[in-house]
Amino acid sequence: MIDHAFLWPDTAEVLANGHLAIGGCDTAALAREFGTPLYVLDAATFDAAARGYLAALARHYPGRSAAHYAGKALLNTAVAQLAARAGLGLDVVSGGELFVALRAGVPAEHIHLHGNAKLRAELQQALEAGVGAIVADSLDELATLARLSAGRAAPQPIMLRVTPDIAADTHAHIQTGHAASKFGFALDALDAAAACVAAAPGLRLRGLHAHIGSQIFSYAAIERAVGVLLDCAARLRDQHGIVVDTISPGGGLGVPYTADQPQPDYAAYVAAISRALAEGCAARGLPLPALVLEPGRSIVARAAVALYEVVATKPLSSADEQPRTKDEPLAEASADPSSLVVRPSAVTRYLHIDGGMADNIRPALYGARYTALLANRAAAAPAEVVHVAGRFCESSDVLLRDVPLPAAQLGDLLAVAVAGAYTLSMASNYNLVPRPALVLVQNGQARLVQRRETYADLAARDVPLG
Amino acid sequence: MIDHAFLWPDTAEVLANGHLAIGGCDTAALAREFGTPLYVLDAATFDAAARGYLAALARHYPGRSAAHYAGKALLNTAVAQLAARAGLGLDVVSGGELFVALRAGVPAEHIHLHGNAKLRAELQQALEAGVGAIVADSLDELATLARLSAGRAAPQPIMLRVTPDIAADTHAHIQTGHAASKFGFALDALDAAAACVAAAPGLRLRGLHAHIGSQIFSYAAIERAVGVLLDCAARLRDQHGIVVDTISPGGGLGVPYTADQPQPDYAAYVAAISRALAEGCAARGLPLPALVLEPGRSIVARAAVALYEVVATKPLSSADEQPRTKDEPLAEASADPSSLVVRPSAVTRYLHIDGGMADNIRPALYGARYTALLANRAAAAPAEVVHVAGRFCESSDVLLRDVPLPAAQLGDLLAVAVAGAYTLSMASNYNLVPRPALVLVQNGQARLVQRRETYADLAARDVPLG
Repeated sequence: MIDHAFLWPDTAEVLANGHLAIGGCDTAALAREFGTPLYVLDAATFDAAARGYLAALARHYPGRSAAHYAGKALLNTAVAQLAARAGLGLDVVSGGELFVALRAGVPAEHIHLHGNAKLRAELQQALEAGVGAIVADSLDELATLARLSAGRAAPQPIMLRVTPDIAADTHAHIQTGHAASKFGFALDALDAAAACVAAAPGLRLRGLHAHIGSQIFSYAAIERAVGVLLDCAARLRDQHGIVVDTISPGGGLGVPYTADQPQPDYAAYVAAISRALAEGCAARGLPLPALVLEPGRSIVARAAVALYEVVATKPLSSADEQPRTKDEPLAEASADPSSLVVRPSAVTRYLHIDGGMADNIRPALYGARYTALLANRAAAAPAEVVHVAGRFCESSDVLLRDVPLPAAQLGDLLAVAVAGAYTLSMASNYNLVPRPALVLVQNGQARLVQRRETYADLAARDVPLG
Repeated sequence: MIDHAFLWPDTAEVLANGHLAIGGCDTAALAREFGTPLYVLDAATFDAAARGYLAALARHYPGRSAAHYAGKALLNTAVAQLAARAGLGLDVVSGGELFVALRAGVPAEHIHLHGNAKLRAELQQALEAGVGAIVADSLDELATLARLSAGRAAPQPIMLRVTPDIAADTHAHIQTGHAASKFGFALDALDAAAACVAAAPGLRLRGLHAHIGSQIFSYAAIERAVGVLLDCAARLRDQHGIVVDTISPGGGLGVPYTADQPQPDYAAYVAAISRALAEGCAARGLPLPALVLEPGRSIVARAAVALYEVVATKPLSSADEQPRTKDEPLAEASADPSSLVVRPSAVTRYLHIDGGMADNIRPALYGARYTALLANRAAAAPAEVVHVAGRFCESSDVLLRDVPLPAAQLGDLLAVAVAGAYTLSMASNYNLVPRPALVLVQNGQARLVQRRETYADLAARDVPLG
């Protein structure tokens, strides 16, 4: 039995040899076969989360509904195929994501194109593909769309992204629904946007969208967003004679990364939105629209585990193990007695691993915390508390802090949980380190779905000087 | 004449048509030919900075010396060639950087391999190449090196990275010299490290290295680091009978990104280090070692300009334009009168551009600020103050805030200064957006040195499900 099993893939188990297994595959064997760092995606967990959303929609929402996987969390050809086979639509935010989605065989009508600064070429690409909706973000974009779509036989469905001015209770970096957001139409721009769509023969206003942010652990803000969207729908009906066909309150429900973080109840979340939408429509005399949810992280985050090899260890040389900044003077130098409190820490060692901020920038970028275990000794009791340093040449590349682990040695395998979302999708070649491979595991079978980068790949775009 | 010319490449000028030119090339023409986002690297600025370091070393340091370009700032085949042709050695931090350096024809003996978690395969690769030095970071690494080098005819030169316990006056993310750093040997581990090298027939202790961090604007901390390194050298002589041949106090001198930041004097910096080293050796009775400096950012940052197209504009919908976090309550809700001060802002618009955090993560990661102008109207006076939002689906993707610019329109070209370091080198495919191209400009000629990524590149590592 794995501690805090709710942070690991549904299929995670400890084998008799003490190894962590995912999808019936021994992770130590995966590391030997595919190398490290390695991302292991559990098809069963992905699938169960997708089907969980669809089942909750079917049970709680009386109208038409869909769940679109938000590809920006993690997208490649196989993941797009997984999403489509699970019955999800797909939200894309670029021509590249649209390209991969179409290449994977996702039907264009199940794809929505989002983004605050779509390029003309991307809009053209989406129009040619015939995507289910282009979610427009600005009047400038609508003007471009009006021109590009002028000669179309069938009008392109458009949704308008509205900024509901709701500050979600999350990190400012991933908070997107407040009035000063770079995203979407301010409420006072809705009429102009609707008029722009109405005046364009190649466009048809299909719906309204809002997204208030990521890693949200309360339904209240999303229910408020539904109310704002329905107020907009009523205004479009009253002022413009437009019946809104589709409403999307986005995605963004939180996912726990550590044992102390709350576990959202996805079914309750879907039920709360469904109720807010149905009751809000009844109160405003609106017909029930199609409801589109856009989960990304909550489908793929826990489905993947990252595997790293411990390549060096190092003692911490000082009792004061926290980096100091110039804004954080030494306690001894402070006149404020409260700052003299020394935070106790049992950390005495760094483990250095073969990956880090280039494959997972979330700790450096958001201060994100993670949970880990030694995959080749998954049943061993913790013996020390360590920091796990990444391999990249920067002090911020410390992937985990204060992790209890068995006494680790060189060659041990570190498994990091909840590694599926915003890790590989944000991965870089910092320090010219090749990006990891991704394997899909299911029923004891492992299939490489994104191969590891090679040194030749790193130089493939280089043009040497003569 | 360009405002704040010291932030732009040496060759930057405004042409008669009002366009910004770099290296004699009209940037608007470059954008048309190569597309945007486009990074434009000025060979003259790179070369002048490199030669400036070498000239200062020749003038101020009485012993042997070298300057090694720190490839992690920006490295590809052409940049490695540029560095080598300018007379620089090269510091690499991975097998990938070593691969590119060797591919570019940089002589192995001019290459030093750094890094806190080098892989066994990378150490093997460096040993086989015969690099000038492997800069060892831990006893674990030395033990591995001792094994791998056991059968060598000529011993591999080793430098020891020492952690001098000096907290540099810079951002904690890029501060590397304090005692709790993940990098290097604590001072009390020096004897064990020296003994480990001495016991390995395939290794030879050549020198000592320290690096106290990046973006440092004071020489004092670096002079202190030189003192610590010389104390170590004296201890190695006294305790182990080892004469240290080479001393490197790293790199990290600061670069201004905005007009209000200080301009370090590189010659004075080299002179200060040279004096500290010469006087410190004399005081300790040590022979003068070779001095190796390791500049990266200070050579390449200002040499490059990033060009983006304005693809949408959007009014800010609220007087309160700053994102709020849950840790920053609204001023109205606070009991502390000092928090009632409202920061005045003239910002009324977002410009949305076709790049952002995936090609330059520094604003999101470090809160870095930049300087920009409209490259196709470089002589026009500022008419408004704007925020420049990147295209990526995340609120933190605002590349610049509070930038004075002429009234921008769709299709205008935004040039961002000091864009050469830690931009493309940290670039990701977030949102599956292809990474930009890099062109080298010189004497009116533009040469593509790293081609733009294609959609096909994005899917090249994908293995579809059957």
